[in-house]
Amino acid sequence: MNAAAANIGVVGLAVMGSNLARNLASREGNTVAVYNRSREKTDQLVAEHPEAGFIPAFSYEEFAASLSKPRTAIIMVKAGRGTDAVIDELVKVFEPGDIIVDGGNAYFPDTIRREKAVRATGINFVGAGISGGEEGALNGPSIMPGGSDEAWITLGPILKSIAAVAEGEPCVTHVGHDGAGHFVKMVHNGIEYADMQLIAEAYDLIRRGTGKTPAEIADIFAEWNTGELESYLIEITAEVLRQVDAETGKPLVDVILDQAGAKGTGAWTVQTALALGVPVSGIAEATFARSLSSHPEQRAAASILPGPEEAFEVTDVDAFIEDVRQALFASKIIAYSQGFDEIRAGAAEYNWSIDLGAVSKIWREGCIIRAQFLNRIADAYAEQADLPVLAAAPYFADALTRGQASWRRVVVAATQAGIPSPAFSSSLAYYDGIRADRLPAALVQGQRDFFGAHTYKRIDKDGTFHTQWSGDRTEIEAVDTH
Amino acid sequence: MNAAAANIGVVGLAVMGSNLARNLASREGNTVAVYNRSREKTDQLVAEHPEAGFIPAFSYEEFAASLSKPRTAIIMVKAGRGTDAVIDELVKVFEPGDIIVDGGNAYFPDTIRREKAVRATGINFVGAGISGGEEGALNGPSIMPGGSDEAWITLGPILKSIAAVAEGEPCVTHVGHDGAGHFVKMVHNGIEYADMQLIAEAYDLIRRGTGKTPAEIADIFAEWNTGELESYLIEITAEVLRQVDAETGKPLVDVILDQAGAKGTGAWTVQTALALGVPVSGIAEATFARSLSSHPEQRAAASILPGPEEAFEVTDVDAFIEDVRQALFASKIIAYSQGFDEIRAGAAEYNWSIDLGAVSKIWREGCIIRAQFLNRIADAYAEQADLPVLAAAPYFADALTRGQASWRRVVVAATQAGIPSPAFSSSLAYYDGIRADRLPAALVQGQRDFFGAHTYKRIDKDGTFHTQWSGDRTEIEAVDTH
Repeated sequence: MNAAAANIGVVGLAVMGSNLARNLASREGNTVAVYNRSREKTDQLVAEHPEAGFIPAFSYEEFAASLSKPRTAIIMVKAGRGTDAVIDELVKVFEPGDIIVDGGNAYFPDTIRREKAVRATGINFVGAGISGGEEGALNGPSIMPGGSDEAWITLGPILKSIAAVAEGEPCVTHVGHDGAGHFVKMVHNGIEYADMQLIAEAYDLIRRGTGKTPAEIADIFAEWNTGELESYLIEITAEVLRQVDAETGKPLVDVILDQAGAKGTGAWTVQTALALGVPVSGIAEATFARSLSSHPEQRAAASILPGPEEAFEVTDVDAFIEDVRQALFASKIIAYSQGFDEIRAGAAEYNWSIDLGAVSKIWREGCIIRAQFLNRIADAYAEQADLPVLAAAPYFADALTRGQASWRRVVVAATQAGIPSPAFSSSLAYYDGIRADRLPAALVQGQRDFFGAHTYKRIDKDGTFHTQWSGDRTEIEAVDTH
Repeated sequence: MNAAAANIGVVGLAVMGSNLARNLASREGNTVAVYNRSREKTDQLVAEHPEAGFIPAFSYEEFAASLSKPRTAIIMVKAGRGTDAVIDELVKVFEPGDIIVDGGNAYFPDTIRREKAVRATGINFVGAGISGGEEGALNGPSIMPGGSDEAWITLGPILKSIAAVAEGEPCVTHVGHDGAGHFVKMVHNGIEYADMQLIAEAYDLIRRGTGKTPAEIADIFAEWNTGELESYLIEITAEVLRQVDAETGKPLVDVILDQAGAKGTGAWTVQTALALGVPVSGIAEATFARSLSSHPEQRAAASILPGPEEAFEVTDVDAFIEDVRQALFASKIIAYSQGFDEIRAGAAEYNWSIDLGAVSKIWREGCIIRAQFLNRIADAYAEQADLPVLAAAPYFADALTRGQASWRRVVVAATQAGIPSPAFSSSLAYYDGIRADRLPAALVQGQRDFFGAHTYKRIDKDGTFHTQWSGDRTEIEAVDTH
């Protein structure tokens, strides 16, 4: 064996790491070194996949020796302290110019911190978001790498070789420096939360409004998947709704406990948006909907609270279903618009040069939110790179204009029927807020000036003002120290 | 002058600090030492208020020498590094058993960190939230101290002497250890955001639906202030709406720029709730409404988006106003219920023993959200200390039951009219979510299992399950590693 025969290595051989290693090995030009903390996983992977030609290593020294320079290694371990431990080991055996890639779901401030620390050694550190789950890792994920331009020279061709392909283009781009890749992956997941919640609300409304069975609603989603809503999440929703539980003969969705879990990236997305001053109400409501669902003791206590007296019954079923489809598409546009707003604001805050159109393109395949719809986002940014708000770009503005009456009818129906639709209604409230000539925020400013002397600005002249509320109530020009 | 004549000292003599020092000095038994980084403010305060009998200090050594033991000092400087700098100085001149109080708006994790660091010196550190603005500091704020039981022995009587009084009881209680006080103050501010946004939505709907002038709406709020909505924020809303701009003769609220500012505590409240898994949608929507309002370039771009075609016109004005009042009260109940849920979850997470009824009582006077309404919260927790969800307690459940039809009509009207009411509609969606027998969260779990093998639970038996979606679609029992 040539001691430095591998051009890429993978550390961490659980399902995601193994699949990514197999994906790498299957592409022309790649030879893959593999290492895992416990030897068993390495032996098993090598034994089960002789076709891959893996170069197994059983120590970090062996691993480093098996890699050609610049050494390039992708860490695929559970995000957290384990990542730091592996980085520490690799830094000991790597040299300046080598490249360490964290392919886990790291929180982007951790990636910024790690990149800074590793860079001091002369080694490149790249935080790369990888989306697509186990299957994506094996067959082609969407990859969102950050890190330095230098690292990208070596890493780019390797990642392009394994990424999903959309209309001939690999679903990977150099997102920006240091933590930009993990930041964008975080927002991807936040959008995914919103997308899923919107679909769940659409399903719930149709089911409760029309009495259709999950299998019948599966057909509706399958039909929707042939139009502007076409996406992986719509596709798999049809699959899930069609599934019958073998044990009870009931639709599986009726047997699953209605308490949604979460692994934290939705919450991170909203927390970060709050720090950036970006309203991501769709993602927030989706995240809250999951946490609300998973408090059974609260739901039991609140079950005494009454709903509306009238039963919910839709008279024109087809029209209602079309209204729900329009509401779903409109709300989805708002969710994506808010998510891209967060990326824009994050890029400004962290000084990343992020091409929003390129980001939308690498999400067309491989990742969970993959959809043709993302081409329209790419078009919008191609038309105007500094678009202030995606929802106001021509294609989306047209769709919203067409859909708003339906959207309102659906929110009205849900409100009257007592069916929770937090993501539909908050998206519509955002739409009505962002387009408003005048908002009651002026009253909020008046209140803040009253109780806290926080001052306000006027519509008719520059400056900052304060009314002396506890005095003679005259207005004075104030130094804005708030 | 007796060198150790003061029983309490204040560091930082800007408006809040000066007013708090004057408040302290005005109460029987207190002698107040004062110190400020720049000498001028100290001299000015002492000169302007000879009645206070302040003991000025011009160095930390002098300050420490002027205090009787255990020395007790309240820091009133802008939250952030300034606080750390003052703590460092005080620690040098104080002794074990002395007490340092941070009366600023610190972020509670900072308070936890500071308390731990200071405790190691044997000195007590108390983070105390103080609400009520400049006037409250002078005449009686609501005070939310954390810190040790030992510190409370000395500090309790001093804080009780200056706090606001509600029905004979001082608005201060020992909230819990270390950061508990600043945590509760943070949630207070979050609730304040929600309360203000709800009021703003009520005003906007009445104005746009009925054409009433701000002065006429001021009368409505003044009337509401005599009933179950009675509160400081309702009271000052009437004052703000009645105010006429001297320069233009217009209502002041029409001259104020409609871009709401924020100082971060709303965002902290939501970020913390997300970390705790508590849905605080009302506070989140209020925070987002402010950030949405303050992006004029986005609002300009989105102004092309259309609203509904039909004009908004209310036919039965009195009935509509009563509906809005009911919607406001119902939404307010949800906002408080969510806020207290966050305190409950925070107490569990950080191991604080917080008496939720006592917290509601100290908010009855002095602070911005002061209201008689808080007695009802105290009653609810007196009835059942471990209430899972405040909104389901008898008084609130009754109010929600009475108000829900009005609440729905108001959200429907806003939705049809294209008037943004994110806080009204998200509160109602929470209400309908928490009381739902069955949520579409089951579909979300099915989706998560499909694309990420995240597993699900079943309604009919224990265990964790996975459907082999990419295989033969049979269900297997899974080890829950997610």
